[in-house]
Amino acid sequence: MTINEVQPTALALDWHRRGGTPAVPSQGRLRPLGLREVTLRPGFWQRRQDVNRSASFAHIERWLERAGWLGNFSTEPEQRRGREFADSEIYKFLEAMAWANDPALEDRYRAIVRRVAAAQHPDGYLNTHFGRPGQRPRYSDLEWGHELYCFGHLIQAAVARARTFGHDELVDVAIRAADHVCDVFGPGGIESVCGHPEIEPALVELYRVTGNARYLSQAALFVERRGHQVLADIEFGRSYFQDDIPVREASVLRGHAVRATYLAAGAVDVAVETGDTGLLAAVTRQWKATVARRTYLTGGIGSRHQDEAFGDDFMLPPDRAYSETCAGVGSIMLAWRLLLAHGDPRYADLIERTLFNVIATSPSDDGTRFFYTNTLHQRVLGTSPPADTLVPRASSTLRAPWFEVSCCPTNLARTFASLAAYIATTDDDGLQLHQYTAATVDTTLPDGRRIGVEIDTDYPVSGRIAIRVTHSPGTPWTLSLRVPQWAAGATIDGLAAARGLIQLRRDFTPGETIVLDLPVRPRLTAADPRIDAVRGSAAVERGPVVYCLESVDLPPHISLDALRLDPSITPADRDGAVVAAARLTALPDEQWPYPALPDPDRTAESLPVTLRPYHDWASRGPSTMRVWLPTT
Amino acid sequence: MTINEVQPTALALDWHRRGGTPAVPSQGRLRPLGLREVTLRPGFWQRRQDVNRSASFAHIERWLERAGWLGNFSTEPEQRRGREFADSEIYKFLEAMAWANDPALEDRYRAIVRRVAAAQHPDGYLNTHFGRPGQRPRYSDLEWGHELYCFGHLIQAAVARARTFGHDELVDVAIRAADHVCDVFGPGGIESVCGHPEIEPALVELYRVTGNARYLSQAALFVERRGHQVLADIEFGRSYFQDDIPVREASVLRGHAVRATYLAAGAVDVAVETGDTGLLAAVTRQWKATVARRTYLTGGIGSRHQDEAFGDDFMLPPDRAYSETCAGVGSIMLAWRLLLAHGDPRYADLIERTLFNVIATSPSDDGTRFFYTNTLHQRVLGTSPPADTLVPRASSTLRAPWFEVSCCPTNLARTFASLAAYIATTDDDGLQLHQYTAATVDTTLPDGRRIGVEIDTDYPVSGRIAIRVTHSPGTPWTLSLRVPQWAAGATIDGLAAARGLIQLRRDFTPGETIVLDLPVRPRLTAADPRIDAVRGSAAVERGPVVYCLESVDLPPHISLDALRLDPSITPADRDGAVVAAARLTALPDEQWPYPALPDPDRTAESLPVTLRPYHDWASRGPSTMRVWLPTT
Repeated sequence: MTINEVQPTALALDWHRRGGTPAVPSQGRLRPLGLREVTLRPGFWQRRQDVNRSASFAHIERWLERAGWLGNFSTEPEQRRGREFADSEIYKFLEAMAWANDPALEDRYRAIVRRVAAAQHPDGYLNTHFGRPGQRPRYSDLEWGHELYCFGHLIQAAVARARTFGHDELVDVAIRAADHVCDVFGPGGIESVCGHPEIEPALVELYRVTGNARYLSQAALFVERRGHQVLADIEFGRSYFQDDIPVREASVLRGHAVRATYLAAGAVDVAVETGDTGLLAAVTRQWKATVARRTYLTGGIGSRHQDEAFGDDFMLPPDRAYSETCAGVGSIMLAWRLLLAHGDPRYADLIERTLFNVIATSPSDDGTRFFYTNTLHQRVLGTSPPADTLVPRASSTLRAPWFEVSCCPTNLARTFASLAAYIATTDDDGLQLHQYTAATVDTTLPDGRRIGVEIDTDYPVSGRIAIRVTHSPGTPWTLSLRVPQWAAGATIDGLAAARGLIQLRRDFTPGETIVLDLPVRPRLTAADPRIDAVRGSAAVERGPVVYCLESVDLPPHISLDALRLDPSITPADRDGAVVAAARLTALPDEQWPYPALPDPDRTAESLPVTLRPYHDWASRGPSTMRVWLPTT
Repeated sequence: MTINEVQPTALALDWHRRGGTPAVPSQGRLRPLGLREVTLRPGFWQRRQDVNRSASFAHIERWLERAGWLGNFSTEPEQRRGREFADSEIYKFLEAMAWANDPALEDRYRAIVRRVAAAQHPDGYLNTHFGRPGQRPRYSDLEWGHELYCFGHLIQAAVARARTFGHDELVDVAIRAADHVCDVFGPGGIESVCGHPEIEPALVELYRVTGNARYLSQAALFVERRGHQVLADIEFGRSYFQDDIPVREASVLRGHAVRATYLAAGAVDVAVETGDTGLLAAVTRQWKATVARRTYLTGGIGSRHQDEAFGDDFMLPPDRAYSETCAGVGSIMLAWRLLLAHGDPRYADLIERTLFNVIATSPSDDGTRFFYTNTLHQRVLGTSPPADTLVPRASSTLRAPWFEVSCCPTNLARTFASLAAYIATTDDDGLQLHQYTAATVDTTLPDGRRIGVEIDTDYPVSGRIAIRVTHSPGTPWTLSLRVPQWAAGATIDGLAAARGLIQLRRDFTPGETIVLDLPVRPRLTAADPRIDAVRGSAAVERGPVVYCLESVDLPPHISLDALRLDPSITPADRDGAVVAAARLTALPDEQWPYPALPDPDRTAESLPVTLRPYHDWASRGPSTMRVWLPTT
């Protein structure tokens, strides 16, 4: 099927009645639900979504003003502040506000949109860093300029607005921008791409909203161009922006982790809309290889600080793990698209892991400080950045209020605001539950049958998930439940449930309750022997949550370095934490740290140690911390 | 003692009669020898010194011309090429030529000096990157501008020339430059320092050559200023250029490894010349902590790519080990100064380790390709950069001919050219041998007694070192021999010799031979348990040489990842290599690389594996490689 033959049937859907949703493919195994069809109820994720709306939004807007990035849209070129991509933070924030879809935000939203719109050039170009007197010319630095990246986020914000509200000024701005991009980078135009992918999924989404196939063609062109060395070589190599190998030839994600996931998400979007099964298979293969060889236990990706990039296969050091928050966002964007395309619960497994251990880890409890990177091992005590300070360094040892490169607060904001979309999907025959949290689902199948369930659970505290049917059409339909790969021993209504997808097909009765029980008891986890950096170590997990040991939970005289986990004793729940058995070992005090083998066994005294969820780490002040504990 | 009271007695020495030497402290436990007093004879190091002189020099000069860095001294500002510090490569090369002190080089040397001298401003300022029309003003970017760094290398080159030859045009240029630096940065001038230390040791050395205490005072001022946040904060933090903590308060080397060692070397120089025992003790303490906690098995330092910097204590991942060649040079500069000050053989131990495993590793056999970084674990096959290509990336997986930042070829050149200086020293009572290689030593003690020895050895192939006395004054004197810390079981003339310093005091007879036997048989080495990245692994060493396993030495179907070293079997010499026992293990093929504990034992088939010296790695084409091998 060529692009022009595509019949974008999904476009006909009245998405703003359903509350909108990110990523609306016109074909694929599963269909997303709208944000009005899934309502979070009190629990792990609703609490975070509330903090996002009630605290992070205001925090972000204050900092966007304070750092001058919002002001850039109305100041003179020489007053322009922030990095090349600062405009995009405003767009991500607008996207977050659009998903939140809260009348109380409407005035603020419109005020920002007015400022943005005023800066658009008559031909649709819009970027505060290029093209004005005293600035570099438009598109003079595609490697680092981020112009198309900024357009991508502008378009994503407008897509969110169109789906949640309808046509407005921002949608017009985005359409003018997209037309400009197609004019300049279309056939006969500049034959190149942006150093940072993002325009690709954005243009496909705008195509889905508008039905204008020109945007899909342009996205496909960008996906195809990349990998043919259309960008200049840079210190980090062209793999940094995935310009080393064409998307359909690559075997694994590589280079800058955020760039890699955004590009892959866009490639899935193009593949799905154009029926390009070869391209979809290529990205699917890359995702599998990346999960198997380049992903941290937390779901985090990117192990290198220098270029915020993937390392080689199995190069996953826990200390100085980069695991950028935004790469977690990108990983969820990608896995979600693959889940919709294929229906395989493995994608939802990774989303769950990434949500609980990357997305939930970055923000502070009050939603006003953030980890940019999410290390799995902190060797030295950090110092807390002052609340009013813009932090120049990504690798802050404690959560910081704002960064010179401050993509994570706004990226989290749009993710939390649209979180309900990732809970469930439908297909022709019923409802699939992918993530477990207290929520209400009320939707209608394409054939008009209304289905509703209420999910009652305190997951991940306990593994008991009660699904009460609230609406059932009186005909048989299928309720699909994901049993995570970690959940050996799960039961449904008391009967053993194998890991993977459990499908219950029957004529459900409103009021009946299905109980899924996931064994969230603490467990010990090992690592592939090729992950050299954690050889001889184990981690503690409990359900989908990775645990860690922090120095604040140790007696003051005991060093984290001196502990050896005893893997013969299974860790146990105690008072909301997990207690494991450890032994103290004497640490050598040598002038030269490489003694002859055999090395003496120094293990001595045993003691219980308390581990807590990794996503809460560093919330009680500076601490050293380990996810992977050396074993006895 | 204040600076003005210093009596620089060493200045009276006629160094160019003795062939010159780097670092001539006026006080300390040991005194350096001149390059005419120690002559390398055929062996491991003479071969490398010959290649340096016969091949690397021409290679370097060709690239300095080709990259335009030499031309910078005579071109217009807008034609100026290369990075901010490109001038310094010319100076390091001039220093190398000066130490080589070869009449055949004299015309080329003078031609380069003429080009350099012509670019000096009337007030002594000299930098091709700043201060001319169209360029940024002088000293407008102390953080990154490298102006004082370049002056430092200019002065070091002139010091080498003064000591090996005498007063010449370059010495005049350097004195004018040093006077300019003192004028601008002295009391009442700019109260700051250079982002890259180097001016500090250079000014002390120029003081030693000229007797002008102003240079010593200025060096002391630079050392004292640093650490008080006189430079701006940068993305990497002020520790990057050691401006976080004053030198005399720091507990360990940190930040950029080359910067850290150059600064520490300069601080030792200042401390020794001014009798500042507190400052000397501070650097000594930092050195000890750095060796114990921040040094690779190879002696290499710096584990982080992002900022070419030290990591936290024990953060020493073998893969992506940075271990910059120039940091090896800086480490030797520092250890040598501490050795002269204290006489402790531990400093010579580290010099030996660094020479054999960093300095010898970087250049190719033919002296025309170089490793910029020296990783201890290569996971993927590299590709060879073309011989005529300037490589933008430091972390080339194979040796490259030249880099955008090409400090290592010239830094190696000056090190190899002055290598004989590190072999031996004298004190009032005799001769100390620190490094073992075939060589002749012929020197005179301060009291006029002539002492000579001829060292006959093929070390490190064998551990037999025969020291034949060639000149002895007929009165008792002390011959000190270093027995390396690794050399348990060493003997001298058949008698057990403890590790450390062995002192033989007697009236040696010309013609008599002392035989030191160091047990260079292969051995297995472990690591401090806090070096998480090599837990459960062992390395093979043989004498001072670290060995490694390369994929080119494995059958094609066997992956380096699948090998487990059997530590119960001692490795053995075979045909110039070392053979160890390994077992093959089945590698898992999972979608998710974090299985539940307990993990099954997959070890199977056993086989012998051949290890070769790490310094030779990647000399037979692309290879994967490990220094640290997981054990069974």
